Amino acid sequence: MANGTVYLIGAGPGAQDLITVRGARLLAQAQVVLHDALVSGEMLALCPQALLVDVGKRCGQQSARQDWINQQLLDYAAQYQVVVRLKGGDPMLFGRADEELSALEDAGVAYHIVPGITTALAAAAAAKAPLTRRGVARSVALFTSSTAPEHAEPMPVTPDADTLVQYMGGREAIATAQRLLGHGRAPQTPVVVVENCSRPEQRIVRIDLAQLAEGLTVAHGPVLVMIGEALRLRAGQQAERAPD
Amino acid sequence: MANGTVYLIGAGPGAQDLITVRGARLLAQAQVVLHDALVSGEMLALCPQALLVDVGKRCGQQSARQDWINQQLLDYAAQYQVVVRLKGGDPMLFGRADEELSALEDAGVAYHIVPGITTALAAAAAAKAPLTRRGVARSVALFTSSTAPEHAEPMPVTPDADTLVQYMGGREAIATAQRLLGHGRAPQTPVVVVENCSRPEQRIVRIDLAQLAEGLTVAHGPVLVMIGEALRLRAGQQAERAPD
Repeated sequence: MANGTVYLIGAGPGAQDLITVRGARLLAQAQVVLHDALVSGEMLALCPQALLVDVGKRCGQQSARQDWINQQLLDYAAQYQVVVRLKGGDPMLFGRADEELSALEDAGVAYHIVPGITTALAAAAAAKAPLTRRGVARSVALFTSSTAPEHAEPMPVTPDADTLVQYMGGREAIATAQRLLGHGRAPQTPVVVVENCSRPEQRIVRIDLAQLAEGLTVAHGPVLVMIGEALRLRAGQQAERAPD
Repeated sequence: MANGTVYLIGAGPGAQDLITVRGARLLAQAQVVLHDALVSGEMLALCPQALLVDVGKRCGQQSARQDWINQQLLDYAAQYQVVVRLKGGDPMLFGRADEELSALEDAGVAYHIVPGITTALAAAAAAKAPLTRRGVARSVALFTSSTAPEHAEPMPVTPDADTLVQYMGGREAIATAQRLLGHGRAPQTPVVVVENCSRPEQRIVRIDLAQLAEGLTVAHGPVLVMIGEALRLRAGQQAERAPD
């Protein structure tokens, strides 16, 4: 029955030209594009010919929504040759890819995966702050906290690495900072907060770990919190202008 | 004196179409491209008009070589308007970017950073193995070991996260596996080894942590070692064909 191919593509952080060349070419060939809420409008301008299906609407239980997305993928793959599943960032990192891949595999639908720029790397570029630095930091942990009730797991544990990057790290990053201070990290450890990475409303704020533990003023949009000595401003580096 | 702009661009894992659209456009405009040894020939075909400078030759002490690269950047920025510094993967992760950025800042040279697909994400896509999985893994650590004698640091410490990805992880990954087993990780923990990611000679090998601790048969080229329960083959997933 199913005769189409599904391309699971990472859109990157949001800017239209931060998708890969491969991803952009496939978008231009797509007959259907199933996209998340996080995928930007300018990105969807790369596939004006395609039927757009927004599967990112937040309604109902997350697991029920995922089942519905999986079924949408199978339904469209049965009707169209080139089906794109477009996800913000990279599909293999915090993208619940395995659930969609399982559905495709169980139904015998062919698929390919195209990686995307994950927000941590776009944020590091925007802030001109490397995540590793010789003699200072040679490991980076990327992590997220979940607040969905279905995640009935023990309290989140902060991973241990020289540089920490917390995705969707608004309020949750405050708890991370408190745990890190409790484990002996220096209160002066640099923290870079990037909001709406790569988008026109991007905002970069530099604080330190002690300040993060006290709270975080975050306006809107996805927030990434980076913590670590590697992020310290270089002697000749200009800090970003403070937000108005 | 310096009047050019330097673009520090991540080339991604190697395949020509896994650079970003922004990176490809800038390559097509570049007058000079200073590139690493890891950057592939097909990538350099994106800038046939540019003067190519290979700064990746391995000779002499690494720190002396870095000083020389920094000086090359400044010299070319003084002579050309559009200078690209092209690095394999992403420039802000294991790219020694801060040393080049410091040199540019100290000399007052304007620069921009364009992120790239880091090999971990391209390898996860190639192996169809997500680095995070709901209820199983919500943190990923990316790390490397250095064998350069100038890195007079204590023995490398393995970061702690649900999924571990070791860059340049040939022999060093064996020691990582031994440490992880010592810390109580299950011997059956899946391991995916990806060699020459995204290139024609790409090779994917699936073993487990106990096997990795016993040794690793690696042929040539850059090797990425991924470790974690998230990487387990799905019920309907086909393993890659074993290498000949």
